[in-house]
Amino acid sequence: MSQTDDCNRHIVLASRPSGAPTAATFSMNHGPIPVPGRGEVLLRTVFLSLDPYMRGRMNGGPSYAPPIGLGEVMGGGTVSRVVASDHPKFRLGDWVLATSGWQDYAVSDGTTSSVLAGMKQPSWALGILGMPGLTAYVGLLDIGQPKPGDTVVVAGATGAVGAVVGQLAKLKGCRVVGIAGGAVKCRAATTDLGMDDCVDHHGGDLPGRLRAACPKGIDIYFENVGGPVFDAVLPLLNVGARVPVCGLISYYNDTVPPPGPDRLPLVMGTLLRSRVKMQGFIVSDHYAERHVAFTRDMTAWLADGSMTYREDVVEGLENAPAAMIGLLEGKNFGKLVVRVGPN
Amino acid sequence: MSQTDDCNRHIVLASRPSGAPTAATFSMNHGPIPVPGRGEVLLRTVFLSLDPYMRGRMNGGPSYAPPIGLGEVMGGGTVSRVVASDHPKFRLGDWVLATSGWQDYAVSDGTTSSVLAGMKQPSWALGILGMPGLTAYVGLLDIGQPKPGDTVVVAGATGAVGAVVGQLAKLKGCRVVGIAGGAVKCRAATTDLGMDDCVDHHGGDLPGRLRAACPKGIDIYFENVGGPVFDAVLPLLNVGARVPVCGLISYYNDTVPPPGPDRLPLVMGTLLRSRVKMQGFIVSDHYAERHVAFTRDMTAWLADGSMTYREDVVEGLENAPAAMIGLLEGKNFGKLVVRVGPN
Repeated sequence: MSQTDDCNRHIVLASRPSGAPTAATFSMNHGPIPVPGRGEVLLRTVFLSLDPYMRGRMNGGPSYAPPIGLGEVMGGGTVSRVVASDHPKFRLGDWVLATSGWQDYAVSDGTTSSVLAGMKQPSWALGILGMPGLTAYVGLLDIGQPKPGDTVVVAGATGAVGAVVGQLAKLKGCRVVGIAGGAVKCRAATTDLGMDDCVDHHGGDLPGRLRAACPKGIDIYFENVGGPVFDAVLPLLNVGARVPVCGLISYYNDTVPPPGPDRLPLVMGTLLRSRVKMQGFIVSDHYAERHVAFTRDMTAWLADGSMTYREDVVEGLENAPAAMIGLLEGKNFGKLVVRVGPN
Repeated sequence: MSQTDDCNRHIVLASRPSGAPTAATFSMNHGPIPVPGRGEVLLRTVFLSLDPYMRGRMNGGPSYAPPIGLGEVMGGGTVSRVVASDHPKFRLGDWVLATSGWQDYAVSDGTTSSVLAGMKQPSWALGILGMPGLTAYVGLLDIGQPKPGDTVVVAGATGAVGAVVGQLAKLKGCRVVGIAGGAVKCRAATTDLGMDDCVDHHGGDLPGRLRAACPKGIDIYFENVGGPVFDAVLPLLNVGARVPVCGLISYYNDTVPPPGPDRLPLVMGTLLRSRVKMQGFIVSDHYAERHVAFTRDMTAWLADGSMTYREDVVEGLENAPAAMIGLLEGKNFGKLVVRVGPN
């Protein structure tokens, strides 16, 4: 069933996953289209963003984003259109960046919505011109502080954030080594995204092949996966290396700490010996300070062709759960968005 | 046997320790007093500094300081006096900060020696006015970036570095919680060093008592021990916390990684959720940039009484091995120096 104008489909968190989410984690319900009140707008979802951080919100425990309640609509960024408005800032037909979540329609008072003016590709506001793009920008430039000639390693090299990190690092004169799952993605990382090399983490002997790809060691490791990639990176970190910690997708489905040995002393010893800076960050802290510069820079880079962008578009809200499950398994190729309704 | 003017006692690395060093790790030899050549000086050791980093140099593997060879004299900072000089910068009787190591006499070409002018307490050049003091200064101020009202936690609170960190943090308007081994040290941390609270890590339930001592969480954890103290600190780190990693004394005697569970994902997840910056540093990187400001500030603070200093002086070069072993067990109380000879 597609989006209609007389029913609001919404996907709720049906159960908290233990480990990887499954089909039973989600449930699609149908209800009436909500009615906006005074000063409010009614938004119709066109694109829904799927992002790794959503896994954290499925847990009951504390994370940087608050947990989603059982039976509540899954949250998420959307690109929507205004179908009714009693708000002076929003007019019928406007394209809007919103937080409607996994549903066809949502009412907004305007506080977490903003009109998208003059964007040729409105869905890009969920990707390279939005949260994942700003994540790459802040993490690489502000925390990573790349210098020409630095070796930069980024995992998830063709993903929503990694692809931007890699291209940004190339713009800054760095040697960029991507890590991605599979030969096709690796080829895209070097051919389409301009990375100098890309290591397939399905290909065996990741430590040895990463070492070969980084003959001068690693100056910046943009951490968005954790797990075996981090293990391969650790012995290659140069003195003064920077490790912006953006995400840890390989751990998100874990329910208990992994067995030993305990690698913490090894990691701390490496930080000390090699004077490494490791810094976690959350993009939402940085909008106020960096969003204007980011939008200006990224728009220019896209316009002059120094940056390219690939979306992985899944058709239909009903396919959002399977797409989310696949995202945590690395199945997407580019920024994952769901087309929920027609333009 | 004391220092004489016709024999050079020197302590060499007799065997590489597996785990904690023992008496068999070291061996004292006797030899002739070396003869300085053209442009060189002969130095007589008065004070020898003992520091945790020396444990790393006893291993064969890579560390930030190169390993000491088997049979080689143990390295180390000294405060010495010039007993013969063919170098224009050094005159007979001058007090000198040098790197003579664990021995009575050493020849220097002057490159790693500097004259100590106008110091009332020359041994302080090994402590609060030297390497440990600069370590505290750079780690707390430059990496920790304390703000008034921040809660700062420092382990080894009465040690060479910790005592300076705590007092500096108080000068910057922070609430300071020390961690030390035993009631006597804890009392000194609050009474003599002015810390707001001090938790005895021999006293059981370190996590619970540290939590009680830090009702507003922790903004800066100055890491110089690792181990159970780090575990107690981790859940208390506030959003935006800074963790300068200066040392990991609790791991220095480890020969294999500790058993599981592997705490790395927990630590990385905390860095991410709470946007924590963790940064290793080595003081030798920072002399050029910070030594002048440090010396000016610290001299003033000592002069006006805003900083106090405690030394733990061990008498006699022959007692250096036992003192070093004790240092790694936390037995010293204040900056550990060995008096090798008379003034």
